[in-house]
Amino acid sequence: MSKHFIHDNFLLENKYAEELYHNYSKNQPIIDYHNHLSPKEILDDKIYNNLTKVWINGDHYKWRAMRTLGVDEKYITGDATDKEKFMQWAKTVPYTMRNPLYHWTHLELARYFDINDLLNEKSAEKIYESTSEKLSSSQYSCRNLLRKVNAELVCTTEDPTDNLVHHKQLTTSDFEVNVSTAFRPDKAILIANEGYNDYINDLGKVADINIESYADLKDALRSRIEYFDANGCKLCDHGLNQISYESFTESEVGTIFKKKLEGHKLSKEEVLKFETAILLFLSETYHEFGWVQQFHLGALRNNNHRMHEILGPDTGWDSIGDYSQAEKLSAFLNALDSKDQLTKTIIYNLNPADNEVMATMIGNFNDGSVKGKVQFGSGWWFLDQKDGMTKQLNALSNMGLISCFIGMLTDSRSFLSFPRHEYFRRLLCNLLGDEIKRGELPKEEMEWIGKMVADISYNNAKCYFDF
Amino acid sequence: MSKHFIHDNFLLENKYAEELYHNYSKNQPIIDYHNHLSPKEILDDKIYNNLTKVWINGDHYKWRAMRTLGVDEKYITGDATDKEKFMQWAKTVPYTMRNPLYHWTHLELARYFDINDLLNEKSAEKIYESTSEKLSSSQYSCRNLLRKVNAELVCTTEDPTDNLVHHKQLTTSDFEVNVSTAFRPDKAILIANEGYNDYINDLGKVADINIESYADLKDALRSRIEYFDANGCKLCDHGLNQISYESFTESEVGTIFKKKLEGHKLSKEEVLKFETAILLFLSETYHEFGWVQQFHLGALRNNNHRMHEILGPDTGWDSIGDYSQAEKLSAFLNALDSKDQLTKTIIYNLNPADNEVMATMIGNFNDGSVKGKVQFGSGWWFLDQKDGMTKQLNALSNMGLISCFIGMLTDSRSFLSFPRHEYFRRLLCNLLGDEIKRGELPKEEMEWIGKMVADISYNNAKCYFDF
Amino acid sequence: MSKHFIHDNFLLENKYAEELYHNYSKNQPIIDYHNHLSPKEILDDKIYNNLTKVWINGDHYKWRAMRTLGVDEKYITGDATDKEKFMQWAKTVPYTMRNPLYHWTHLELARYFDINDLLNEKSAEKIYESTSEKLSSSQYSCRNLLRKVNAELVCTTEDPTDNLVHHKQLTTSDFEVNVSTAFRPDKAILIANEGYNDYINDLGKVADINIESYADLKDALRSRIEYFDANGCKLCDHGLNQISYESFTESEVGTIFKKKLEGHKLSKEEVLKFETAILLFLSETYHEFGWVQQFHLGALRNNNHRMHEILGPDTGWDSIGDYSQAEKLSAFLNALDSKDQLTKTIIYNLNPADNEVMATMIGNFNDGSVKGKVQFGSGWWFLDQKDGMTKQLNALSNMGLISCFIGMLTDSRSFLSFPRHEYFRRLLCNLLGDEIKRGELPKEEMEWIGKMVADISYNNAKCYFDF
Repeated sequence: MSKHFIHDNFLLENKYAEELYHNYSKNQPIIDYHNHLSPKEILDDKIYNNLTKVWINGDHYKWRAMRTLGVDEKYITGDATDKEKFMQWAKTVPYTMRNPLYHWTHLELARYFDINDLLNEKSAEKIYESTSEKLSSSQYSCRNLLRKVNAELVCTTEDPTDNLVHHKQLTTSDFEVNVSTAFRPDKAILIANEGYNDYINDLGKVADINIESYADLKDALRSRIEYFDANGCKLCDHGLNQISYESFTESEVGTIFKKKLEGHKLSKEEVLKFETAILLFLSETYHEFGWVQQFHLGALRNNNHRMHEILGPDTGWDSIGDYSQAEKLSAFLNALDSKDQLTKTIIYNLNPADNEVMATMIGNFNDGSVKGKVQFGSGWWFLDQKDGMTKQLNALSNMGLISCFIGMLTDSRSFLSFPRHEYFRRLLCNLLGDEIKRGELPKEEMEWIGKMVADISYNNAKCYFDF
Repeated sequence: MSKHFIHDNFLLENKYAEELYHNYSKNQPIIDYHNHLSPKEILDDKIYNNLTKVWINGDHYKWRAMRTLGVDEKYITGDATDKEKFMQWAKTVPYTMRNPLYHWTHLELARYFDINDLLNEKSAEKIYESTSEKLSSSQYSCRNLLRKVNAELVCTTEDPTDNLVHHKQLTTSDFEVNVSTAFRPDKAILIANEGYNDYINDLGKVADINIESYADLKDALRSRIEYFDANGCKLCDHGLNQISYESFTESEVGTIFKKKLEGHKLSKEEVLKFETAILLFLSETYHEFGWVQQFHLGALRNNNHRMHEILGPDTGWDSIGDYSQAEKLSAFLNALDSKDQLTKTIIYNLNPADNEVMATMIGNFNDGSVKGKVQFGSGWWFLDQKDGMTKQLNALSNMGLISCFIGMLTDSRSFLSFPRHEYFRRLLCNLLGDEIKRGELPKEEMEWIGKMVADISYNNAKCYFDF
Repeated sequence: MSKHFIHDNFLLENKYAEELYHNYSKNQPIIDYHNHLSPKEILDDKIYNNLTKVWINGDHYKWRAMRTLGVDEKYITGDATDKEKFMQWAKTVPYTMRNPLYHWTHLELARYFDINDLLNEKSAEKIYESTSEKLSSSQYSCRNLLRKVNAELVCTTEDPTDNLVHHKQLTTSDFEVNVSTAFRPDKAILIANEGYNDYINDLGKVADINIESYADLKDALRSRIEYFDANGCKLCDHGLNQISYESFTESEVGTIFKKKLEGHKLSKEEVLKFETAILLFLSETYHEFGWVQQFHLGALRNNNHRMHEILGPDTGWDSIGDYSQAEKLSAFLNALDSKDQLTKTIIYNLNPADNEVMATMIGNFNDGSVKGKVQFGSGWWFLDQKDGMTKQLNALSNMGLISCFIGMLTDSRSFLSFPRHEYFRRLLCNLLGDEIKRGELPKEEMEWIGKMVADISYNNAKCYFDF
């Protein structure tokens, strides 16, 4: 009988790679320090009932593939039945060869459901039935899905207005996986967005501050940071096309914010000044609280207005931008560093053409005070695949120290995405194993290299975040 | 005796690659959906007489190599004899190792002339004689060169002012290869170019419209699109550094066009407004006619003014630019999509640093209506080589569906360039074969993977263009 | 006993690679045509006494690694003892795996000191002692370190104000290695820099010209070029983020320069006009003297102001920028070429995303007058590692002629960096050997390929610079 597609040594191409993965990485727990899971579903220990609900609904990676193949939206986000949607996805899978979806699909079927058949039109029915049966049982509840992959911590992402009610209840629950949160104040920063004033109004209510001035806004945000911190939050996140850095005075920013509250349109320069000011304020506050700050840079979002109006954001109409990143990012980090207020920072970038800019940028602010203080984040979104992760690992290795890297995260909305940690670890071990075989790393240092693998898989993140 | 350099399994590095190429790709006909062949020469069934005429004259790839080596222009575009020029090229060939010219040269000698000697100073004389003999016979006429490579369709590129006389005659000729045309209105778009008004004058004459206003210009272009369409045209092409997208009103554009006709210089902003308007108009019209539109983005042309003045455009003084592409391209495609007037579209980019931008951009507008509606075009010009094609295939695979890719085209001026299809196919099969061997694609799916290969080699283009 | 990490065939993965390296490259002398060695130390035949002094002090690559690991600045540039600093570096080395430092470290220990132990905390003491002993002997003086690596020529880099006193004395010394200089007038170009007027004052003194006008400045620079030329200088260098190209008149530039001398702040446009003018003037003068001009483009320097104030420039706070390069660079080269005043030129770029722009840019001005007239410089600074060099070699090969490449240089401040030539040569031979094995280059052409290797290792530079 032939070996399964996803077998023990999948992606491991020599004995060094195998040894590294099986001895040093495989059994490390998972610290998924950035994702978009629903804390409510974890609290409720939700049961999904079928693969469409847990796997296809909400997964814009799969949607984009189906749309490219010419599948009608009815079977993607429309009113087709769950089973019809699954059948369309199953039909699509063989067309995704060479796309990460092909590997993820079969890795997830294998790891969660012990299914080793390839998914396609022929196998779809049987797979749908057997997974539905499993997913309808409590053994496949949210919490059990997280237990199955040896998760030690998951960190979700919440808006400053969030009351963290589910996180609070989880803290006192008997669920042994740590469910933390990350503070994501994009809506308070992006002053040019529609609905900004409504958001500020909501923020004021939650913070119990009547926001009428920039000072009020800062008070409100600080109060929310305190609240998040009191509830165990240790990091934050920002999704920005590029970092703004425009010189400003506090009084200018006060005037700009007031102008906005009064319903006037801001000039581009005013927007940049405001964004610079508020982000600096936030970063200084994160530093005060000892948080880790994350920046996700480089996306070009909501390109398709027609579909955005129908389906809203995050439904598969985003892509990679080609913004200038280096100068402003440098100036921003330097402004914080100059006052010794640069907290631990992770920079993710979406355009691989910028990998080397980012891999060298972090070195500008790694000043010996903390091991791996400024990190180049793992391949993200479109780059969360073999080539993308490899390029990030190589750029980081060549221009920094991969030994200090805090490794992988899912950034996912799905409870079935955790095998991506395994995927990353296999790939990492294979890169190292390949270089050992070529003689580019010394064979006799297997134990040390194994320690590096364990560190990148688990220990570095554990130590960096102090979870 | 040692194997020929270009042997049966050239570029195919394992048995899976070999099986894929020989069983699924090799015998597929060629649809060369974009090139710059001369329809007149096809109509006349031209005989070239020697390699210099068919192979070196007009080939700026070879010219650049010779110039880099220090060969005097006399032997390139100057008044040296055909044989002298050939001898200089032959001397240059060994210096082109690792450049695609080295592979193309020997692939073309092997496929068209059954010559398996390596070309160099020593072999030059003999090769020149034997190829001259062949090229002087009717067996090596244009048409027979196309037949030799199993071409099913070739699509040349014509200006709106072209009367398509050769295409018309070819339609009624007994030549069994379909010779189609693509509409390329760059000269009507690039209003800042020298000689623009003269061109508009010519266009008016051909369209039998006295172009005195922007409305007249649109009428004239529409009339030419109708004419091209009536003569079997199904696609168009645009060579633009980057897509413009500047907001405008019809009345503004009218004023700008008039200003130009009156001989005034336009501001940069006026140029951008005009270019945006006219390209949107054209694209809406293509959509109406159901054409495929092509955009070739990213070249930096005519860098060397001294040589440009002597030799004119397309003589080897162009290179790759580093323009911002994402935001304007997105806005342009979105403007069309918003009105449901985005026709099937192929985007080629010349700077590989933009590959991931392009590979994700197409997904923003693949809406399920047509399989592979928006395509990321194959590695183009400087990227039409092993690394360039591989990077394009990998970016497309990782961020889209390579299974829906319409594959290769020559974009060439030469009747001897068609083995580039073979080159692309071998490379594609080798990429897939390599991943099968590594276990990244399942061995047991050889038949499916073979179907993917056949689709990318032929079926997808056949279906996409409806030739 | 197991093979040493740095063994005879390190990086050479098949017999073709081995044959190419050992038969055609290994024994070629080194022409290190661009570095930052101290001519005074060569003249004095300095003895360093220990590895910290010759290897760690001044090496910001090592410093960045140590800082990333969290080593305190005391042990890097601070007041710790030489031995303490070495112990910290030794502790860091195992953490640098996959960074070029790991290879360089062991290659340098092997080549200069015959040490084949891996450097780490355990081996540190012994290695420090044995190398200190060696470095304290005259056998390890500067000159003997250069002799050890078969250096034929080293070319240092000096400011126009330099009196070249050490170079002069070296000329008449019995040191058989040619020690040349490159003219680097950045300080005269970067008019927006702090201290510009003081510099102009110094320049005037050295040139014996009271610089009160732009014409005076040009006279002074020309006089220094004459002086450098008279002292054997054959090339120059420029470290610029990007090339400026702004239209200007001589009278405008005169006014701008005067304004600066009078202590006024210049606008951004004025700065660009001045930079364009003075660089064109310099390049025209280089052409007159038949020099080679070098441009190092793309760095983003001095990002960390806090550390820059403490430690000054070139101490490890620089990174890679993402500037637009193509259009201005093209316009600048074209302006020179149009007057037939473009001298031999080498363009280095620091962002690998621009490799293809550069690899094609050089072709725009390779006009057949000189073999490889415009060169794409070898992987530089952050790119001086296996991946970076490979990408540069591949881009150059695919879009130009690697056969005409003038190859490697160290660009280093350290007398122990010369094995990077060996590293480059091994890598080059391995790339070629790999392609021979794959059948992408013909086996039967080993002798020709060997000649290419010898040319790139030595002959091309020898011929290009006419040293």
